[in-house]
Amino acid sequence: MSTHPFDDALELEQLGDGRFRGRTTAPYNNMVGPFGGVTAAILVRAIELHPDRLGDPVSLTVNFAGPVAEGPFDIHARPVRTNRSNQHWYLELSQDGTIATTATAVFGTRRETWDDIESAPPVVPSADEVERAGLPDFIAWAQNYEMRFHAGALDETGSADSVATLWVRDSPPRPLDHVALTSMTDIFYPRVFQRRGQYLPAGTISLTIHYFATAEDLAAHGDAHVLATAHARRFHRGYFDQSAELWSASGELLATGHQVVYYKG
Amino acid sequence: MSTHPFDDALELEQLGDGRFRGRTTAPYNNMVGPFGGVTAAILVRAIELHPDRLGDPVSLTVNFAGPVAEGPFDIHARPVRTNRSNQHWYLELSQDGTIATTATAVFGTRRETWDDIESAPPVVPSADEVERAGLPDFIAWAQNYEMRFHAGALDETGSADSVATLWVRDSPPRPLDHVALTSMTDIFYPRVFQRRGQYLPAGTISLTIHYFATAEDLAAHGDAHVLATAHARRFHRGYFDQSAELWSASGELLATGHQVVYYKG
Repeated sequence: MSTHPFDDALELEQLGDGRFRGRTTAPYNNMVGPFGGVTAAILVRAIELHPDRLGDPVSLTVNFAGPVAEGPFDIHARPVRTNRSNQHWYLELSQDGTIATTATAVFGTRRETWDDIESAPPVVPSADEVERAGLPDFIAWAQNYEMRFHAGALDETGSADSVATLWVRDSPPRPLDHVALTSMTDIFYPRVFQRRGQYLPAGTISLTIHYFATAEDLAAHGDAHVLATAHARRFHRGYFDQSAELWSASGELLATGHQVVYYKG
Repeated sequence: MSTHPFDDALELEQLGDGRFRGRTTAPYNNMVGPFGGVTAAILVRAIELHPDRLGDPVSLTVNFAGPVAEGPFDIHARPVRTNRSNQHWYLELSQDGTIATTATAVFGTRRETWDDIESAPPVVPSADEVERAGLPDFIAWAQNYEMRFHAGALDETGSADSVATLWVRDSPPRPLDHVALTSMTDIFYPRVFQRRGQYLPAGTISLTIHYFATAEDLAAHGDAHVLATAHARRFHRGYFDQSAELWSASGELLATGHQVVYYKG
């Protein structure tokens, strides 16, 4: 059985003392450098592999400080503080000694509590009723996702709003886990493209993910489609925001992603 | 002219090499330790005071790793990478060598771009039409804010939703700047109290702020009220989220705050 391209992209050599060596892989390239979602996932994977890790992801913030070049990179993951039920991390990803990406993460164990899902998913037809349509071939990473757009498919017409809503899963399908969920929060092309109907210089500066789904929740989800929706609130003097929600077909909020994106034009 | 209590709380002694010494102040105490919003603001202030600082805040993530005790604390602020138009920071706040808080921040300069405010503020009466009502006296920090609740005033009845919407400004009034805006993203008491109609053990684990307002925008805002709204999406096994928007009376989105909060019960 061959390795899934996503798992191949997340391969890390463990050098000990919180140090890891990875490399970019062609299937997850973006227009310049690797897809940010996979970079975020690799940072989560580094923590998962760390011998001192406690629990599962609760939150993650990744700051894209500079470009990641194709080729090898180094990760240093440091557990800054470990409490009884949660753990705080700081990570740096560097190439040839230059820091390209920083991140903080909170991992934790979960307990039984009063629970409620207050928000509601967008109302859309089921995944098999929506036609498959992805991003153009030159966006390599997107070819590794099955995308079925209900709203916000990439075109060059411009749009009155920035809302994108689609069913998505890995292609080929792969059981959902925290690393896959991490990457999926970043599958939305920059919302400014949708509003303006054209490609513009744009790139994520900072991505924050809040994880609701536990490992058990994800095991129950399997390789089913995820309902993903995102929108921007404001575009102002070179930066806009983009908030995303990832839902299961049964109406469970799995994770949210909130990012700031740099743009010109 | 006496110093505003907020500015007093943000006083930092500059020790050089990115090191600062501050201390908690009684007016901004929370039930245990200082109000998280002020801790976040102090971290922004440390960057603002750093001689290498470039531009103004674009994003900030603060991870509350452990309690901050009343008394002095140390901050170390490190510019991890400086680009042409933005700068990435990592910060640690510690007491007696134990890390209590970590943060990453992106600062940057702004440029003229195509701009748009896509989201809309909640529709509410003007600030002077809403009665002033705050949090109970034993929540010290809240006495330093003038709060006029349109929805979500703290009571013990429980609520079908977690939406809180209020007009807020510093008390006494103080011109809005990035540090004040930082603190205001955290003025919402834990959304689980509103849903459940009771106090429960709860505390912010991670707070991410995205700044839209530039220094010029804030200068134009002055000491006017801010329209603040927040809600939770999901409460699940010990953690819930809380997303906040801060608006000007003229309908400009000034900043957003997205946090993960730990809870029991």
